Amino acid sequence: MKNIKLTIEYDGTSFCGWQNQPRGRTVQNEIEKALSILLKKKVKIYGAGRTDSGVHALGQVANFKEKIAIPTGKIPLALNGLLPEDIVIKSAEEMDPSFHARYSAVGKKYIYKINNTKFRKPLLRNYAYLVPYELDLEKMMTASKYFIGEHDFKGFMASGSSVKNTVRTIYSFDVCMIDNMIIIETRGNGFLYNMVRIMVGTLVDVGRNKIKAHELPLIIGSGIREKAKHTAKAQGLYLAEVYYD
Amino acid sequence: MKNIKLTIEYDGTSFCGWQNQPRGRTVQNEIEKALSILLKKKVKIYGAGRTDSGVHALGQVANFKEKIAIPTGKIPLALNGLLPEDIVIKSAEEMDPSFHARYSAVGKKYIYKINNTKFRKPLLRNYAYLVPYELDLEKMMTASKYFIGEHDFKGFMASGSSVKNTVRTIYSFDVCMIDNMIIIETRGNGFLYNMVRIMVGTLVDVGRNKIKAHELPLIIGSGIREKAKHTAKAQGLYLAEVYYD
Repeated sequence: MKNIKLTIEYDGTSFCGWQNQPRGRTVQNEIEKALSILLKKKVKIYGAGRTDSGVHALGQVANFKEKIAIPTGKIPLALNGLLPEDIVIKSAEEMDPSFHARYSAVGKKYIYKINNTKFRKPLLRNYAYLVPYELDLEKMMTASKYFIGEHDFKGFMASGSSVKNTVRTIYSFDVCMIDNMIIIETRGNGFLYNMVRIMVGTLVDVGRNKIKAHELPLIIGSGIREKAKHTAKAQGLYLAEVYYD
Repeated sequence: MKNIKLTIEYDGTSFCGWQNQPRGRTVQNEIEKALSILLKKKVKIYGAGRTDSGVHALGQVANFKEKIAIPTGKIPLALNGLLPEDIVIKSAEEMDPSFHARYSAVGKKYIYKINNTKFRKPLLRNYAYLVPYELDLEKMMTASKYFIGEHDFKGFMASGSSVKNTVRTIYSFDVCMIDNMIIIETRGNGFLYNMVRIMVGTLVDVGRNKIKAHELPLIIGSGIREKAKHTAKAQGLYLAEVYYD
């Protein structure tokens, strides 16, 4: 029995997210189908985290435990031949029996892209969040630094989530602009449901001068969802990396 | 009666190309439908050039002649509200009655993107040509310079095209690489059917050492389609700009 860690890239556009669902195409299901063909038996995989419909991944991680005859290094090529074009297995590694993609994870990196042009960009419609208003980047950068550190992010979680402990540590939160694309990169020990998208939505409101940068600590401290404005679109979000010890 | 020039950007992924067809979704048809709603009558537009299924445009041009009450500057916003997400009108200008998007054009610029990674990139599957082999970029750059100037490009035209005069002048042909993406940019007074894609396919064979760079003049001179190897995928091609005097 081997415990195999897969690193996965996918375009979330045509998926109803990562996690298996009664209906709708999911990334998990496509990979389980491919593995089941390869291993000639039903295989279940465990993902590091769910991604919503439309959210992309550059470095999602999953693991599965099975007797497998193929050398670990050959698994990506074998699976990629069975997988659809919008998913690719980037690597496979044999891990300790105790490794679990979700429970062993110690942190994650997300990237978020905002397309800040007046007219929509057809080629970016599924890959960035269109904000056709003038944004004050300096203010967004200033505000973003307040996210860094250990905070109770209760107000930055989508309602309906059942998570009890809403304290998370953000290690970095960087905002830069290349041409008309604002690229946000954040690393933390964990993220609540929709947390990155609510953080970005709040920063966009800072950029539009609806919220002042120095109000961010108050908004975070309040723990009230309504203080942390809108949820930025799924299409701009990329799960970039999952960290393990 | 005004003669209006539209500059158009689109994602070619979900289209059967630019030109109207008996069946299948086309860019021309989507724009004509939107214009017909706006002007409450059937409108025909003339494109600068056809693009094939999967080919993108950053600066396609079309014109139409109609009595139109809306100020020209407001046409893009009005049309964009009626158009699907994968097309955008970037600008509208009133032109001389003699202006014709196709016949007045004096040149075009195309961009071609090659994704040179070992594994496929799901996020680029519709936006670049995956070449998973090692490519000698220096040799491709050397070879590409032979395209510049006036040549008979008969061998670089898809069979079945009825064009008589196959002489074209290439003003520039640049190849560069950013990360693992090879970006090709070429300007010329005109391009034959599939010409850019056959040029790129030939350069890829130079990069793979199947053809030597110095053989390019002979291949061009021969005028034989089979000498100029394969046609690179439509997905990597972008009509970037159309030039007028």
